[in-house]
Amino acid sequence: MPQFRQDLTTRRWTVIATERAKRPDDFAGRGASAAALPPYVPTCPFCVGNEDKTPPASCVLPDPASPDGKRWSVRVVPNRFPVLLTPQDGSEARKRTHRGLYLSMDGCGQHEVVIEHPDHSKTIATMTVEEVTRVVHTYHQRFLELDKSDWNQLIIIFRNQGEAAGTSLAHPHSQIIGAPIVPQDVRCRLDEAQRYFDDNGTCVHCDMLDAEIRDGTRIVSANPGFVAFCPYASSVPYEVRIVPRRHASSFGVLTDVEAGLLARILRDTLSRLYKLLSNPDYNYVVRSAPHHSAGEPHFHWYLEILPRLTTAAGFEIGTGINVNAVAPEDAAGHLGKAS
Amino acid sequence: MPQFRQDLTTRRWTVIATERAKRPDDFAGRGASAAALPPYVPTCPFCVGNEDKTPPASCVLPDPASPDGKRWSVRVVPNRFPVLLTPQDGSEARKRTHRGLYLSMDGCGQHEVVIEHPDHSKTIATMTVEEVTRVVHTYHQRFLELDKSDWNQLIIIFRNQGEAAGTSLAHPHSQIIGAPIVPQDVRCRLDEAQRYFDDNGTCVHCDMLDAEIRDGTRIVSANPGFVAFCPYASSVPYEVRIVPRRHASSFGVLTDVEAGLLARILRDTLSRLYKLLSNPDYNYVVRSAPHHSAGEPHFHWYLEILPRLTTAAGFEIGTGINVNAVAPEDAAGHLGKAS
Repeated sequence: MPQFRQDLTTRRWTVIATERAKRPDDFAGRGASAAALPPYVPTCPFCVGNEDKTPPASCVLPDPASPDGKRWSVRVVPNRFPVLLTPQDGSEARKRTHRGLYLSMDGCGQHEVVIEHPDHSKTIATMTVEEVTRVVHTYHQRFLELDKSDWNQLIIIFRNQGEAAGTSLAHPHSQIIGAPIVPQDVRCRLDEAQRYFDDNGTCVHCDMLDAEIRDGTRIVSANPGFVAFCPYASSVPYEVRIVPRRHASSFGVLTDVEAGLLARILRDTLSRLYKLLSNPDYNYVVRSAPHHSAGEPHFHWYLEILPRLTTAAGFEIGTGINVNAVAPEDAAGHLGKAS
Repeated sequence: MPQFRQDLTTRRWTVIATERAKRPDDFAGRGASAAALPPYVPTCPFCVGNEDKTPPASCVLPDPASPDGKRWSVRVVPNRFPVLLTPQDGSEARKRTHRGLYLSMDGCGQHEVVIEHPDHSKTIATMTVEEVTRVVHTYHQRFLELDKSDWNQLIIIFRNQGEAAGTSLAHPHSQIIGAPIVPQDVRCRLDEAQRYFDDNGTCVHCDMLDAEIRDGTRIVSANPGFVAFCPYASSVPYEVRIVPRRHASSFGVLTDVEAGLLARILRDTLSRLYKLLSNPDYNYVVRSAPHHSAGEPHFHWYLEILPRLTTAAGFEIGTGINVNAVAPEDAAGHLGKAS
């Protein structure tokens, strides 16, 4: 019998329909990016030697192994085709325009690309822990920098791996966008966490983490700072949430030690997905509280990994209910063994 | 400058970013289904002669040109791999199960497939108006039938065209699912309509329709019963909403005359998309009020067409804000000329 499950943090339902079940092998190789890439591509704007093909870097981490410090290990550049444009000052980013029935505003914000590695053929799953730690450090540094501009009400860090995840550039990179609004979807997550806090006096994510650790069936891996698990109402096959054990609403408070532990569990989780599902396409996003909610006690930041193995169709569009053919308990079991 | 636009009916924002603009040709041929199909495929469970490969039909429309009435023109069958299973009675469909922190319920409901045409190679865009009218009549008949079962709180009619839209079967078909809950996404649309009604005493969809007709720049086509337009805050390129001129919250009240007019504008709109974008993949959904809200004055049913030309990535997932590279005014202009 298919089963509706409600995500406690969003009140969204998913149908877990394992009658349509798929084994990990059914998905394997779906990622178009499974083909081996060369370490250097002359036409790639993110490859070493092509630094003039991007706008000037806003942040560069030198390669610690570079004798003269001239080689870089991570580069952050403004996106050449930004979704949102950096305004002169914050005022434009607040102005709403009403025209007839409709509401609009200028597309102000900030949009950066984190080039994660000089080597074109790498991906988080195949980097060293030290390399991924540098990427996480860079996320944190840029998050704090963007958070200083008051037009960035919400800062989203995300990674699109492969064509099915919406990327056209294969060179390993993530993106950071500062948006001038708190959109409805994020507001809804905050509201649900607030409601839970009102009813229980505790954080919904902390309580879920405790329950998941006690239950154990959906845990993928854990370290002293973070726990990776397949959520009870996983909206897609092999969804993984990486949640910090320390309660904090904003990614901005990450410590150096936590950055290392996050890098370790992120690389470990993505390696398991890589191995189990033959380098699947995926998106991940860091869900952190908006700028003005960073001090609130009820939210808890986390990182969400969504493999792109299936396609949302009319039912999902019409209802907002996802259909997931892999029970999260099975997903966690397979991922747990894929170390 | 990119522009945030708010959808008045959902409060969702879209970024219209035409700096990344694409012309219709850039999308053309993206649909994998653009290849010509044969009219009959021996292994297709929906082709003529293979009727025993589906469960027994719940509804059959005979071909009016068939001398003995033995040839069918539209067949409705239970889905062989249903997302939701028909319960024995309504009680199971209401029962919630609380286990620890989590909430679940049985996957009760109904799931039917509408086989739209005996010819494997047809699609709505290439059928005759009479043929599409029979499909719309079937939608209406099955909607009314499913609406009698009190476990079907929400009935969703949808069509997935092509692989990017989540279908694996090329034979022309739509689906109807009755779900035992009103999900958050639908509740949110109802709430926004209610809020607008409270503030204005009028229906938000009626007011939008009036405004769009007066403005004219986003209209694709119109007939005495329906108007097709690209919404102001279109979430994807070439999104089209087909809205009935007559205010009614439920698809269930469709008249015979309206069914003919809906078939005409649906076929016309899909033909324009077919021509302009070389048979693109798309989903459409009929958004109708849930069973218990059918009598409410503030909702207004409509049909939403979403071409699948682009892929939602990390930013869309993290914020719920879509990025659309084609302004709806341009989309409507191109579609208007593609008759």
